[in-house]
Amino acid sequence: MSKMKIIQGGVTAPASFKASGVSCGIKASEKKDLAVILSEVPATTSAVFTTNKMAAAPVRFSRCNARNGICRAVVINSGNANACTGLKGEEDAFEMIDKTAEALSIHPQDVIVASTGVIGVPLPMDKVEKGIVDAISLLSKEGHTDAAEAIMTTDTYSKEIAVQFEFRGKTVTIGGMAKGSGMIAPNMATMLAFLTTDINICRTCLRASLTEAVNKSFNMITVDGETSTNDMVAVLASGKAGNEKLILGDDDYNVFQKALNYVATELAKMIVKDGEGTTKFIEIDIKGAKTGKDAKKVAMVIANSNLVKTAFFGEDANWGRIISALGHSGTEIDPETVDIYFDDVQIVKNSIALSFDENKVNEILKNDEIRVIVDLNIGDGKAKVWTCDLSYDYVKINASYRT
Amino acid sequence: MSKMKIIQGGVTAPASFKASGVSCGIKASEKKDLAVILSEVPATTSAVFTTNKMAAAPVRFSRCNARNGICRAVVINSGNANACTGLKGEEDAFEMIDKTAEALSIHPQDVIVASTGVIGVPLPMDKVEKGIVDAISLLSKEGHTDAAEAIMTTDTYSKEIAVQFEFRGKTVTIGGMAKGSGMIAPNMATMLAFLTTDINICRTCLRASLTEAVNKSFNMITVDGETSTNDMVAVLASGKAGNEKLILGDDDYNVFQKALNYVATELAKMIVKDGEGTTKFIEIDIKGAKTGKDAKKVAMVIANSNLVKTAFFGEDANWGRIISALGHSGTEIDPETVDIYFDDVQIVKNSIALSFDENKVNEILKNDEIRVIVDLNIGDGKAKVWTCDLSYDYVKINASYRT
Repeated sequence: MSKMKIIQGGVTAPASFKASGVSCGIKASEKKDLAVILSEVPATTSAVFTTNKMAAAPVRFSRCNARNGICRAVVINSGNANACTGLKGEEDAFEMIDKTAEALSIHPQDVIVASTGVIGVPLPMDKVEKGIVDAISLLSKEGHTDAAEAIMTTDTYSKEIAVQFEFRGKTVTIGGMAKGSGMIAPNMATMLAFLTTDINICRTCLRASLTEAVNKSFNMITVDGETSTNDMVAVLASGKAGNEKLILGDDDYNVFQKALNYVATELAKMIVKDGEGTTKFIEIDIKGAKTGKDAKKVAMVIANSNLVKTAFFGEDANWGRIISALGHSGTEIDPETVDIYFDDVQIVKNSIALSFDENKVNEILKNDEIRVIVDLNIGDGKAKVWTCDLSYDYVKINASYRT
Repeated sequence: MSKMKIIQGGVTAPASFKASGVSCGIKASEKKDLAVILSEVPATTSAVFTTNKMAAAPVRFSRCNARNGICRAVVINSGNANACTGLKGEEDAFEMIDKTAEALSIHPQDVIVASTGVIGVPLPMDKVEKGIVDAISLLSKEGHTDAAEAIMTTDTYSKEIAVQFEFRGKTVTIGGMAKGSGMIAPNMATMLAFLTTDINICRTCLRASLTEAVNKSFNMITVDGETSTNDMVAVLASGKAGNEKLILGDDDYNVFQKALNYVATELAKMIVKDGEGTTKFIEIDIKGAKTGKDAKKVAMVIANSNLVKTAFFGEDANWGRIISALGHSGTEIDPETVDIYFDDVQIVKNSIALSFDENKVNEILKNDEIRVIVDLNIGDGKAKVWTCDLSYDYVKINASYRT
């Protein structure tokens, strides 16, 4: 990993990928709302999807289309989720696939479609279809930021990253873009993220890599405990780096896995940092839980507690709310052995307040990024979850999203 | 039940009960912060306690003291939860019991103690002890409102109720007081509530009645999904109404049960209506779930969704968030059969938006009380849960509670 370096760019950084983003009028604001990613060659592909049972039409189609492990293009609109739109929604999702395939002269089964935005409103298909044609005419190596902008909803900035590393004598690149920023919670694929790479990799290996990367990144973030109807993470591998094909079980598999984890984790953290109304990025670092599963559960209960989140917004060392949250998390704890630290300052030892330095703690709470360490001292289970505070602006953004 | 009537008063309305509330200086605001309820005779007693594993010292002592089914006095302080206070906290909770018993010349085991407020700060016991002596000197039939005020934390008004009904030729009275208003969530005893009655009732019967009343009332409300370290519901029955003793299995058992349910439900609704920062009272009425358990689970996920709650605050008919919440509730649903109504207007049929009358819906959303009916159409499971919206003021209150 010492050789991995961050480079400029996003989803078009790896060889064979182009992208674009246009405004086609789905959003009243006239901001960009339709993106296309194209691989010039059939890309080995894997994707994970929302666990929400009310999965939107595009999710249902993309789940089918991703099954064959090959993809040429991804088409994504923002401003409208095409969820809870019935038969018309299914027709529209298929039409997006079909129109994209037609304009690119590729097979419809090689297109992945995604939508994000308001639920329950039919897509303005005339606008969407024109947008697809426009976006495809603008596909380019430089289009990555336009694409990243075109998938934003309440995001305040676009989220992209690219890294490079040497692998079997070749330079491999991974790029990615993602969007949040409300309805973010664990259980896989809780927002939109599209990862591209030019590594030559077998399908089984890519699927395993994506699962691990998502479990360590997107599944460990939460803004508000909601799991959207629409979200997905997809990875496309063009093979154009020219390395000898990576297959599962290879000794150097971890070189790719670590790089993919890095890209996914950075995008996941960007989503939390741009969480709706967030003013602070908070890492909940659980140690000493009975099991890893318990650790994640405790971390998520703390991270989703409105009382904990508002206390951080208020820069208030109200560790009692952390104690209370873990007490009702439903996991095994010993009420007498909990230690809590804010950054490097211990606040609680054996479940009792220490007489900590209030000034030092107040300084920590003023920071934009805060690490909360909770050691349950009953086992070896660990988990890190990333979340944000709950501010007036979260309420403001969400009280008026639809209207 | 036709004969049940609401009367003036609170916990002192039933025969043999006195109460008082004083300011002893636990709260910096000099508001009342210590309450005592006394039964002139040993009262048959039952109580339920928080399920939070970090249960505070007073909860642990009261759980023991309630076990014998007899109580003479309840002593409650607000402004300090005496939770996460270690050995000193246990000594202090016991001292509150002991001081109360001594001043009243009763047995310590016949005293229930409760605390509510900030976590992790030792009680100022000199003030508390003086407060107990003062409160006991002021015990009276008129003291019910002082007591109800003395248990408030962020509540904006005190919560009391009393009802009367005829039972076996005697007039039976039930009184009650409660406090919220943050950290309100299901799983029993999620706030403080004290119910008194003069009915002559056996202990087993009283325990069964309390369990049912709590399950239908306090366990069906949620403000923010938190379960506090401190909360309890206790009922004391003096027997002074003089009715022939009510025992489990009696034909007219339901007369008492319905009255107790009514008192508990009214207090529970008062808590939600005074939820931190709330501007709207929302009933989530689930029908057609696979089971009653599923219905409650779905109702609670919707009721605790920040996105749903902020939409109601914004008076926004964003039913998509309700659909999304039920999709990730983890219960069985059919994605094609969900119906949603706001009051009497159907918004969604078979999971698809109807072209409803926007003006009529906007009028409904402006109301202080809104009923959301969700029919899953897959079974007979039902549940009603009461919640409130999420406003700027929730954030404001909780961002600065401790400091």
